[in-house]
Amino acid sequence: MTPSELADGGGTVPGTLYGVGTGPGDPELLTLKAWRLIRDAEVIAYPAPDSGESFARAIVAGFIPEGALEIPIVVPMTAARFPAQEVYDKAAERIGQELSAGRDVVVLCEGDPFFYGSFMYLFGRLEGRFPVRIVPGVSSLGAVSAAAQRPLCAREETLTVLPATLSEEALTDRLQKADAAAIMKLGRHFAKARRVVEALGLTDRARFVSHASLPHQTVSALADAPDTAPYFSMILIPGKDAHV
Amino acid sequence: MTPSELADGGGTVPGTLYGVGTGPGDPELLTLKAWRLIRDAEVIAYPAPDSGESFARAIVAGFIPEGALEIPIVVPMTAARFPAQEVYDKAAERIGQELSAGRDVVVLCEGDPFFYGSFMYLFGRLEGRFPVRIVPGVSSLGAVSAAAQRPLCAREETLTVLPATLSEEALTDRLQKADAAAIMKLGRHFAKARRVVEALGLTDRARFVSHASLPHQTVSALADAPDTAPYFSMILIPGKDAHV
Ligand SMILES: C[S@@+](CC[C@H](N)C(=O)[O-])C[C@H]1O[C@@H](n2cnc3c(N)ncnc32)[C@H](O)[C@@H]1O
Ligand SMILES: C[S@@+](CC[C@H](N)C(=O)[O-])C[C@H]1O[C@@H](n2cnc3c(N)ncnc32)[C@H](O)[C@@H]1O
Repeated sequence: MTPSELADGGGTVPGTLYGVGTGPGDPELLTLKAWRLIRDAEVIAYPAPDSGESFARAIVAGFIPEGALEIPIVVPMTAARFPAQEVYDKAAERIGQELSAGRDVVVLCEGDPFFYGSFMYLFGRLEGRFPVRIVPGVSSLGAVSAAAQRPLCAREETLTVLPATLSEEALTDRLQKADAAAIMKLGRHFAKARRVVEALGLTDRARFVSHASLPHQTVSALADAPDTAPYFSMILIPGKDAHV
Repeated sequence: MTPSELADGGGTVPGTLYGVGTGPGDPELLTLKAWRLIRDAEVIAYPAPDSGESFARAIVAGFIPEGALEIPIVVPMTAARFPAQEVYDKAAERIGQELSAGRDVVVLCEGDPFFYGSFMYLFGRLEGRFPVRIVPGVSSLGAVSAAAQRPLCAREETLTVLPATLSEEALTDRLQKADAAAIMKLGRHFAKARRVVEALGLTDRARFVSHASLPHQTVSALADAPDTAPYFSMILIPGKDAHV
């Protein structure tokens, strides 16, 4: 038997799982390909908080066809890794049913699907069993550099991307060796990240950007940033070479 | 006098300089915004080799309006930094004339404009004198991860991007501390980069992708890669966490 016959017990050709990047927030930063796939979608899945709107869905809301079946994947924001795994197990099973029945499933992924994206949890559970296609998207890195109007990295510079969830020691260690750098996932880790940048004498070069490409985008020098940062924000330390 | 009056001697409102990411190669990976700006452009500039086609222009060739004024920026591939600076001086002057005359200029940038992009050379010469808008694009990093069907980085992993033009020692030093990593600008530096990956015992995890998103895209394990690599290729070392 072929994999497709195994997946559905014979007969039906399985659908394709599409991991589709929606870009950082501005609907116009969707790619033509993502736009086409969403417009033609029969089944659309997306991560959603336990209360309130799904960010990925909100970005493309204007393009979702009437009558598309929607599968929200509700991941409690405070969940430890273990219950989250159960959520993805169930979502993968549900999406697998659609794929087995021969329907393509478009999974919406904020930014780029494979750049710190939760899409990997579905991908890990469904690849090998079903055909998968990834549609890359504009990442927050590009959107934040564009908003800050600062070239990120150039020539022989290295770029280091750091999650602010790392310890102060780890952040310091990695940032020390970096040329250009970006610190993501700020939220409640903002004060720590800022301390590290300050201690290494990098504050002058550092920019702070929140909600890049959205109407409520903010851009400032890190020194002028407010005391708290939302989750959708980043500290950018452009390379020294990246400006001639 | 306002900056716009200074720029053109009074009267005319200056045009806006748009740095527009074209994505990694597949025209469908253009953003809706880039597509709109190119379709409506009066003046389009782009980097071009001294012989042969401009890659950035080729990506969007189907969308360039008839009658648009085109300004190729011809940078000799073998040029040292000094003559290249002269090329950008002249290109900035030429583009500045269009902007001063009140015409917007769309500069095409392969991938994302501020991710190792040559657009920064024009940006550095024209920002402050004219209004500038950056339209981020899908970078090669996203396109290569998508092609390799491997999540790039996850959770608390750091991502390190390395130009293969660095010395063997520098590459080794940076790669040693990396979780997820990507090595760009391979071309004639491929053998060196591969040696470094090998010496650090990372070959098993490493993928090799050339011409991501284009019809002649290749994807393989690094161990199975050919002896030579084109300029438009990358070694990807996905993070260990990025797969569950
Ligand atoms: C889980 S990661 C997802 C990244 C996403 N897959 C991408 O390609 O950008 C979430 C982090 O991305 C960054 N981010 C995403 N969108 C952003 C935006 N519009 N403005 C600023 N930062 C953003 C923030 O640092 C946030 O904490
Ligand atoms: C000067 S950098 C420009 C990067 C571009 N601004 C971006 O956002 O991807 C050129 C390098 O990008 C990488 N690259 C660009 N397009 C690529 C593609 N389609 N496939 C693989 N690598 C690519 C290669 O490593 C190449 O040497």
